[in-house]
Amino acid sequence: MLPRNPHFTLLEPTYLFQKIQERADLYPKEELLNLSIGDVSLPISKECSATLAEEAQRLSHTITGYGPSRGSHRLAEALQQTYYPMLDPNEIYISDGAKCDIGRLQILLGNNLRLGIQDPTYPVYADTARILGNERITLLPCTKESDYFPNLDELPEIDVLFLCSPNNPTGAVATRAQLERLVQLARSRRFLIIFDSAYSDFIQDPGLPKSIYEIEGADEVAIETSSFSKSFGFTGLRLGWCVVPKKLKDREGRPLYLDWERVIATFFNGPSCLVQCGGLAALSKKGLEARDQTINEYLSRAQQLKNALSPLEVTGGENSPYLWVSVPQKNSWEAFEALLENAQILSIPGSGFGASGGGYIRLSAFSKSCTTAAQRVQAIGVSSCLDLPQLSVPQPI
Amino acid sequence: MLPRNPHFTLLEPTYLFQKIQERADLYPKEELLNLSIGDVSLPISKECSATLAEEAQRLSHTITGYGPSRGSHRLAEALQQTYYPMLDPNEIYISDGAKCDIGRLQILLGNNLRLGIQDPTYPVYADTARILGNERITLLPCTKESDYFPNLDELPEIDVLFLCSPNNPTGAVATRAQLERLVQLARSRRFLIIFDSAYSDFIQDPGLPKSIYEIEGADEVAIETSSFSKSFGFTGLRLGWCVVPKKLKDREGRPLYLDWERVIATFFNGPSCLVQCGGLAALSKKGLEARDQTINEYLSRAQQLKNALSPLEVTGGENSPYLWVSVPQKNSWEAFEALLENAQILSIPGSGFGASGGGYIRLSAFSKSCTTAAQRVQAIGVSSCLDLPQLSVPQPI
Repeated sequence: MLPRNPHFTLLEPTYLFQKIQERADLYPKEELLNLSIGDVSLPISKECSATLAEEAQRLSHTITGYGPSRGSHRLAEALQQTYYPMLDPNEIYISDGAKCDIGRLQILLGNNLRLGIQDPTYPVYADTARILGNERITLLPCTKESDYFPNLDELPEIDVLFLCSPNNPTGAVATRAQLERLVQLARSRRFLIIFDSAYSDFIQDPGLPKSIYEIEGADEVAIETSSFSKSFGFTGLRLGWCVVPKKLKDREGRPLYLDWERVIATFFNGPSCLVQCGGLAALSKKGLEARDQTINEYLSRAQQLKNALSPLEVTGGENSPYLWVSVPQKNSWEAFEALLENAQILSIPGSGFGASGGGYIRLSAFSKSCTTAAQRVQAIGVSSCLDLPQLSVPQPI
Repeated sequence: MLPRNPHFTLLEPTYLFQKIQERADLYPKEELLNLSIGDVSLPISKECSATLAEEAQRLSHTITGYGPSRGSHRLAEALQQTYYPMLDPNEIYISDGAKCDIGRLQILLGNNLRLGIQDPTYPVYADTARILGNERITLLPCTKESDYFPNLDELPEIDVLFLCSPNNPTGAVATRAQLERLVQLARSRRFLIIFDSAYSDFIQDPGLPKSIYEIEGADEVAIETSSFSKSFGFTGLRLGWCVVPKKLKDREGRPLYLDWERVIATFFNGPSCLVQCGGLAALSKKGLEARDQTINEYLSRAQQLKNALSPLEVTGGENSPYLWVSVPQKNSWEAFEALLENAQILSIPGSGFGASGGGYIRLSAFSKSCTTAAQRVQAIGVSSCLDLPQLSVPQPI
């Protein structure tokens, strides 16, 4: 048969989640508190559910047919009114989720640009690039020392920067000053920013930007991806969006959206018409109220966890669903093992998100077990939870 | 900003549908009979609609969360029972549609294999390859002379063959003998077949294979893509599937499904959980009865059209929703213009699907206007419909 596509050899084997799962499987399900997952635990709103049901009924006597690859204009308008007063609805493309859009954006970019990717990071930015054959990836350490942001004083030559804020996994939120300087740099050095704002609804501090387009001039240098998944409980339904501003142009002055529309028309047929109706309901007055309640609930869980972990240094959890916990061990797999052994709490070792994640674990406030986990940590004591002198130490990955 | 991704220069501009639309816009909507569209005109079944509504109601108090990237196992089992008695359900991957799967398959293959693509053809096979930077495309004429199948006696060296049966646009269905010889050739010459069976439910002749896996040995050389779109009215809902058999291996003996699972886990998050419930209902006893009624209705429309066009040579329309009409003009744009001017029937000029489509037009039996179109052709007379001596001839594209 065929030779194997050589691009796949650029990927690291997927040991991380497999290994976490294998460790989890050693504990009885009812005892284990799974704080590793980034998946939601609160359902979609009654508003969304009712609208979806109504539309489903209508489908037996209405032909919807293929919708536009860019999704429904009404939904783009609702997104513009809710999130993007500074944009035109025609700059918003509805999709089946941010992950899928990131893959399609890599297709748009081709496989020969120099990509800057945060370290630690959500693995999809680099893995989509590698599968398409792009090896020109520079990891940009985002550690406590650099305020969990790429060090712009030492930014290497890149063509594209992937930035996630609020960040997965660190929970850090880029400040206005950080983003202003970044946009200025992107304009002068002519690189593209791909801004992943999938967690922006968690931002409560009015001083923190929720969208890159709150920064002047960003519409000439940035694409933004985002999602209904977390704030509206849509993870399984699949709905997201991508902003490609009209002012964004390639070196020859050709607007990028022209090739983007070619990508989505060729590799995609638009998100489900039914799910898009749910998206409209999500952005209604009642839908947005439900979203705010959902976000408050997750943030309250995060706060309980943060309080329980208080002797430790924790980033995130205030404007973000993730807690990035600095652990006394240098090896984050040791901390992972200790927390699992002592408190049956499943976390993710920070090094799983990249080398700069060593010394941290990620806890997710999406988990329904947050309150119990916080109580358990308080009962046992933080240092006892993380103490694991006599266990054999598994190899870090 | 960025240099443009050079792959896009490999694409031809998208004039075809734009030009057809521009011509259509010159006629009042109520007079125009649009037989150009491949989109459905019959709704989803009551069964599907009710199940979707029920599931939508349930979603306000049930957490579905991320499903597996490969889709629901129950739905894979239902597909296996309905369509693939010879396969294992684990070989079936549920998706958001055949077009999206074709794009992801190109990602799996990489951009350096030699692709054989039928001419005329559905444009997505070549366009997805070109956008990913693959220029190694050989067009394989599928004309009346070669029984609308690639000439296997003169098959060039290729790594992958894309084959669509029942074919879009020619309506031709590959025979068992044709497919047997093809599979044999793929095995001996070690190329991969990507078999698009999106229209297989239209096959009524029990002698014609509906799936490539009806051919012995195909599971070692073929991937199959298919869809709920046409038979179940799911075009807007987005649901399809892809079969990657366990026996399919690369040159080093590594099963292809391993890299395929990496592609879907990285570029995709699975189809919508809600829509998948609709898919289950579609494959229930009542759902399949509704499918058969739908197919019969489309085939009856095709028959009416075929009868009206009877003096002309027409392929398809019997085991396929498309009619491929041989026109007296050599230039298919002339025939397109004549039919539009004389009978206000919108077709697609065959040359729009590739050079070998010259001298043909495609008519779609999906259109709700088929009966009226057939009556109009009969009233005017076929030759008068296609006669256009005094009009200026537009340039072919």
